[in-house]
Amino acid sequence: MQIEIINTGSELLLGYVLNTHQQWLCRRLSDGGRVVARQVAVADEGPAIQQAVREALGRADLVITTGGLGPTSDDITRDLIAELLGKKLHEDAQVVAHVENFFAQRKRPMPASCRVQAMVPEGAIVLPNAHGTAPGLAMEIPDGQFRHAGRSTWLVMLPGPPRELRPMFTDQVRPLIAREFPIEGGFVCRTLKTTGIGESFVEERIAGPLKPLTDAGLELGYCARTGEVDVRIIARGDGAEPAAAEAERIIRKHVGDLIYGLDDDELESVLVRELTARKKMLALAEACTGGFIANRITNVSGASAVLLAGLVTYSNAAKEKFLGVNPATLAGHGAVSEATAREMAEGAMANTGADYALAVTGIAGPTGGTEAKPVGTVFIALAGGGPTKVINPTNRYDRETFKFVTSQQALELLRRRVLGIGV
Amino acid sequence: MQIEIINTGSELLLGYVLNTHQQWLCRRLSDGGRVVARQVAVADEGPAIQQAVREALGRADLVITTGGLGPTSDDITRDLIAELLGKKLHEDAQVVAHVENFFAQRKRPMPASCRVQAMVPEGAIVLPNAHGTAPGLAMEIPDGQFRHAGRSTWLVMLPGPPRELRPMFTDQVRPLIAREFPIEGGFVCRTLKTTGIGESFVEERIAGPLKPLTDAGLELGYCARTGEVDVRIIARGDGAEPAAAEAERIIRKHVGDLIYGLDDDELESVLVRELTARKKMLALAEACTGGFIANRITNVSGASAVLLAGLVTYSNAAKEKFLGVNPATLAGHGAVSEATAREMAEGAMANTGADYALAVTGIAGPTGGTEAKPVGTVFIALAGGGPTKVINPTNRYDRETFKFVTSQQALELLRRRVLGIGV
Repeated sequence: MQIEIINTGSELLLGYVLNTHQQWLCRRLSDGGRVVARQVAVADEGPAIQQAVREALGRADLVITTGGLGPTSDDITRDLIAELLGKKLHEDAQVVAHVENFFAQRKRPMPASCRVQAMVPEGAIVLPNAHGTAPGLAMEIPDGQFRHAGRSTWLVMLPGPPRELRPMFTDQVRPLIAREFPIEGGFVCRTLKTTGIGESFVEERIAGPLKPLTDAGLELGYCARTGEVDVRIIARGDGAEPAAAEAERIIRKHVGDLIYGLDDDELESVLVRELTARKKMLALAEACTGGFIANRITNVSGASAVLLAGLVTYSNAAKEKFLGVNPATLAGHGAVSEATAREMAEGAMANTGADYALAVTGIAGPTGGTEAKPVGTVFIALAGGGPTKVINPTNRYDRETFKFVTSQQALELLRRRVLGIGV
Repeated sequence: MQIEIINTGSELLLGYVLNTHQQWLCRRLSDGGRVVARQVAVADEGPAIQQAVREALGRADLVITTGGLGPTSDDITRDLIAELLGKKLHEDAQVVAHVENFFAQRKRPMPASCRVQAMVPEGAIVLPNAHGTAPGLAMEIPDGQFRHAGRSTWLVMLPGPPRELRPMFTDQVRPLIAREFPIEGGFVCRTLKTTGIGESFVEERIAGPLKPLTDAGLELGYCARTGEVDVRIIARGDGAEPAAAEAERIIRKHVGDLIYGLDDDELESVLVRELTARKKMLALAEACTGGFIANRITNVSGASAVLLAGLVTYSNAAKEKFLGVNPATLAGHGAVSEATAREMAEGAMANTGADYALAVTGIAGPTGGTEAKPVGTVFIALAGGGPTKVINPTNRYDRETFKFVTSQQALELLRRRVLGIGV
């Protein structure tokens, strides 16, 4: 099955926007057993869009376009594709009602230009947009119009904003693909998510024990991102499910305590789930991570059941006032020290009544380092559920990566204590 | 001038890696007045790579490929392109010496497979790799071999790792492009960043007044992301600079107070800059945004000069303890109310001694809404620099978008007050 993605948008070719659609769509498709063959990005210009779509329709079974369905003058994808296909556009009353309702609910006037989003090529299936105004469109292009392959091509047009595109793909396009392009035989893709260990060390521990399975056709992949390594198992054919289960059992035997979750799990969602199940409350005291850990926890729906407070104490005065850190500790050991981290965590526990508290203090950089405490120095303290534990990694990265890696280490410390793995 | 980029790498099509090369290269080129016409990503497979390169050489004046120059078995771009061009490969003694030296300097043995990186197609210019082993390659393809355009095509092959590709492009490829493809006349590209207004309203206000300029060839583009709209001006030719300046003047006349910055500015970086310049300190009190605003501010290097503390008060008890919110206010008006938002902001000011405080309380959802206060209800309070101001938008989005949009509104409220625009 040949799949091609066409991302339209001058902002992509000008380099103003990172194309996250490519990775997101490719990943969702490959997790479902379908690998994209080609991705193209073109500007919002008639000849470029039509040429790219024409070429893709000449080769592919499924073509997915993104962008260009909105209300402004550079949203031209819908019109250009209708023209290319020789289809007339008509106004869809249901879409008009949806767009009007969208603005009414938000108590905003509807600009007249927004009505163009209700124009639908004849024969197209409308994919309602639950998070915006422009609907997606799906069309079956008959064999012979652009290629002779003995089967039709599906063309799916998705709106550009990620928060509109993603649920539309998951809820509406994925079922369409499953129906129109069923996978023959079994297919299982499972991702085991680890943190706290490098890619080559994961491979060293599991590649040998998994060899009989990989020799028999199991695909094993590693995806290392900063602060975490995914192990991906892909099994195909009739025995896919038992092969994947056996592979997972072997991997868990060798690196089980480092696996924090599966597939779409995030460390923060696992923690909210585990703390909620145990009816335990958390407090956070953050200096160098600046609210990043609180933000991750509160990204999880239901976080209010586990988070009492996050105290972003950037100044020494705030550490004293809100966490009760002793001025003598700050003066004697410095704000970035094991003693301060310990008092921050214990102070956050005492001031909130939480069951656990995480505290972080360090030097994110790029400035602020000294010879004794260079950029990247971090102290992470965990109070509650046992003696207060302080770890002292060195995270030399750019500022945002520093925050992410430090938050991973802090949340993993908490996960291990909450689950009784031992820290 | 037609430029095309070809990114090779199966990991891109599997969705395991985000293609940052596209944005980076497109941005560097567009800032220099050369806009990429098309970008393609293909897997590490012979037919796919050769087809993409053949097509691009049939259209473009400059083709840039990324990836596939390394030593492992999936690094096949160099061989495939040499084959496509009908060029023999020979071992380049200088590259061999560089690779050997690279390993010697790091006191590591050189794997035999690394020698393949010294294979150079005949006639190619070697682009030395200062940060890795695989050199880049540049070749001039004569007119007539793949297209008839009256001029030759340049093909530039760059290695995949960003830390190798980026300096190689900046130091070696940019000068080559400037020499081979000089820009005739002027080129100006400017982005004005707005928030607080929808894309179609921006267009409604400025498209008319700008019509004489756009009729005369000025390009005008809009890029709407949730919570902000970029307006992009591109002017070319001899009068580019005055045309762009006149366009900016007209845009500022009609939506000037909504423009928070230019080009790479972010709202948080603008605020840290403006507060630092005025020696003013900020405190944050966040309920529903859960630390997102503090995180944005602390992403900016130098944030410690302006941020005293961020208090993520998820529970009522935390609102009372850390912000001094009156329990009667919480009982009488609820945690999500104008009165609570006001007391949170004023309490954060009082408890930290800040010059300004922003407070946010609302219902992020997806659960927690009521008929009187549906999901998306937000109260944002700004204290300091004038009477406390509370705004009450309705932000019905998924959880993460809710946080972003709410943070934009809060930071924009602060920006307007700090700059004296009036809120």
